[in-house]
Amino acid sequence: MLVVQKFGGSSVKDAEHVLNVARIVTDTYKEGNDVVVVVSAQGDTTDDLIEKAEEINPRGSKREMDMLLSAGEQISISLLAMAIDSLGFPAISLLGWQAGFETNSKYSTARIKRVNPERIRAELDKKRIVVVAGFQGLNKYDDITTLGRGGSDTSAVAIAAAMRADLCQIYTDVEGVYTADPRKVSGARKLEEITYNEMLEMATSGAQVLNNRSVEMAKKYNVEMEVLSSLKRVAGTKVKEVTKVEKMLIKGVAKDDSVARVAIVGMPDNPGIAFKVFSRVAKAHICVDNILQSIGRDGTKDIAFTVPAKDAEDAVAALKEYAEAVGAKDLVCEKDVSKISIVGAGMETHENVAAGMFEALADANINIQTISSSEIRVSVLVDKKDGDRAVEAVHRHFFGE
Amino acid sequence: MLVVQKFGGSSVKDAEHVLNVARIVTDTYKEGNDVVVVVSAQGDTTDDLIEKAEEINPRGSKREMDMLLSAGEQISISLLAMAIDSLGFPAISLLGWQAGFETNSKYSTARIKRVNPERIRAELDKKRIVVVAGFQGLNKYDDITTLGRGGSDTSAVAIAAAMRADLCQIYTDVEGVYTADPRKVSGARKLEEITYNEMLEMATSGAQVLNNRSVEMAKKYNVEMEVLSSLKRVAGTKVKEVTKVEKMLIKGVAKDDSVARVAIVGMPDNPGIAFKVFSRVAKAHICVDNILQSIGRDGTKDIAFTVPAKDAEDAVAALKEYAEAVGAKDLVCEKDVSKISIVGAGMETHENVAAGMFEALADANINIQTISSSEIRVSVLVDKKDGDRAVEAVHRHFFGE
Repeated sequence: MLVVQKFGGSSVKDAEHVLNVARIVTDTYKEGNDVVVVVSAQGDTTDDLIEKAEEINPRGSKREMDMLLSAGEQISISLLAMAIDSLGFPAISLLGWQAGFETNSKYSTARIKRVNPERIRAELDKKRIVVVAGFQGLNKYDDITTLGRGGSDTSAVAIAAAMRADLCQIYTDVEGVYTADPRKVSGARKLEEITYNEMLEMATSGAQVLNNRSVEMAKKYNVEMEVLSSLKRVAGTKVKEVTKVEKMLIKGVAKDDSVARVAIVGMPDNPGIAFKVFSRVAKAHICVDNILQSIGRDGTKDIAFTVPAKDAEDAVAALKEYAEAVGAKDLVCEKDVSKISIVGAGMETHENVAAGMFEALADANINIQTISSSEIRVSVLVDKKDGDRAVEAVHRHFFGE
Repeated sequence: MLVVQKFGGSSVKDAEHVLNVARIVTDTYKEGNDVVVVVSAQGDTTDDLIEKAEEINPRGSKREMDMLLSAGEQISISLLAMAIDSLGFPAISLLGWQAGFETNSKYSTARIKRVNPERIRAELDKKRIVVVAGFQGLNKYDDITTLGRGGSDTSAVAIAAAMRADLCQIYTDVEGVYTADPRKVSGARKLEEITYNEMLEMATSGAQVLNNRSVEMAKKYNVEMEVLSSLKRVAGTKVKEVTKVEKMLIKGVAKDDSVARVAIVGMPDNPGIAFKVFSRVAKAHICVDNILQSIGRDGTKDIAFTVPAKDAEDAVAALKEYAEAVGAKDLVCEKDVSKISIVGAGMETHENVAAGMFEALADANINIQTISSSEIRVSVLVDKKDGDRAVEAVHRHFFGE
């Protein structure tokens, strides 16, 4: 079997952790597998390097920042290769460009164009464990690029896709994907399996386990992923196209506190209002979600939507002039909201899933501000003070105590 | 003019020093020159990385150590490029392989086979200051190698040679090459110029200003070098093929305290003794200098030579069995010695230079243990306690107060 294993910065933060990773990797190798390991920079390395750069030039070019930051993985891959060697197993480290990562030229947020796994394959043929620097590649000018947030997850999936690996394991500090945040909801259970689409909706809904880019790529190339802990040796959660039929209508309940609700109230009911509102928000490069348009009592219209909380002021600023010009009654921004989402492919075939969520919230006496949904997700906005209680109530409804 | 400037680790140890280097570089650029800058890793970076490796695997492979250590220059070149940018000048950093350094595969002590300066030239054509990672290259397997001690000096000279640069400036923490160590000899003067051969003999004699490999390469390709300080803006010492006629018989007096004298006393006078002695020492990979063979009073022979002090015990161990087998009277090792050398091309045409040295030492009542010489160097061994006095006396004889 060919297994790609990815370890984040906290999993290799010091000598002890590097050796722990080496043991996981060599145990997989001992079982007869070919193993490619993708690692991020150690713990705080990236932050330390950014600090060094800012001391010298707070506006250093992205090309030079990528040159600087990619040194971080260079350090971690060589240390991990040495750790594997110290356990008596053959290993070789490869930088992004040595491992065949070709990217576009968008420094700091480059996209992988192609992975040419020739060198990796040659090293595997020599029975070596191959340790690859995540997060980095090379553009057509032979310059180093980095992939941006969650880049190492994407690197791992890209290798798995290019080499048709049997499994791509993403090791993190959690044991897998849960039906709700296990630190907050006592009944939260670890899922055995979840589909790509469900995982994507979970991530977008506030459950930050996997980076969306990596899941999208895994879905596109049908790479089976597994999320698991680098500290506890237990099975994690598999992410794949089709999951076993389980008696679960939904896979999880997620909460996102980093949203704000913006509303323009009492606008005259003219055609093209929605277009005018959202084109202004889009121009400010703000992502909009949970759109709700309703007819007010006096024939006017209200439009409400959510934006990332950090963009709330900008969204209001982008709309202020327009709201005044059309004589809207009010332009409001509500930051004390939580978005509660349920996610599950089961919704596609069961009509009453959403109703179950509303029932649970009503029983808990929690008011719903707005509702939005996709094929496999239903999200509601509630007062932030009710957020945790809402998750509990909905989780209990679907999963029991 | 095309100028190559090299800065060592202490010259770029922190943000302040990096910005100082950026000012030197941009001042050279402002004068209308094309500038290629070669930098080492910052201050203690290399030591820190070695420590990290040793914590994990004290016997990490040299290939992985080179992967690890070469991250050091990657950090310093990007920081320097950002510093130059912050002063308002265009700069680009290049790793060893991007700058065209092809080496053999001897990890940790690789030799440069070729420098292909195509990319550097293209960047210079764009009017950029090119910042190159010293100390590193790429072998035919596309793996990163490092050049070993003094590697960045060699990198700088190799670029200067490949591009036929007009000058290769090596910035250090001293202001140039002196007639003697200026911290110890009050009358020591900075030399305006010195020949390659003189510089090589000076370095071998204990004056650690430039790495010999870089001077040998500069000599071979006739690259004019200059040794100067990164902290004081004053002219340094030029190293070149022919120096101006100066009324100086010698260029300097050097002292090397890191030698030991080994002697086998009272060996029977059989043919092939020297061969047998030195083949044994060579087998132990120990470099030998100042060989002296003399005939003892009773028809036996004595052989004495110097070795690096750190190898003294090994040299004695390598000879112990043999000395006993041939019935030598004694095998002694004297560590309390200093090697005092005078260096100067003037010796080639003036017979009495060596005599002047011996006279100065005799006047100071300092006993000479052994003498050795090359065309442009005379070295003597004296008691270590007399070392500083010997340098003073010889320096005074040739250079006055």
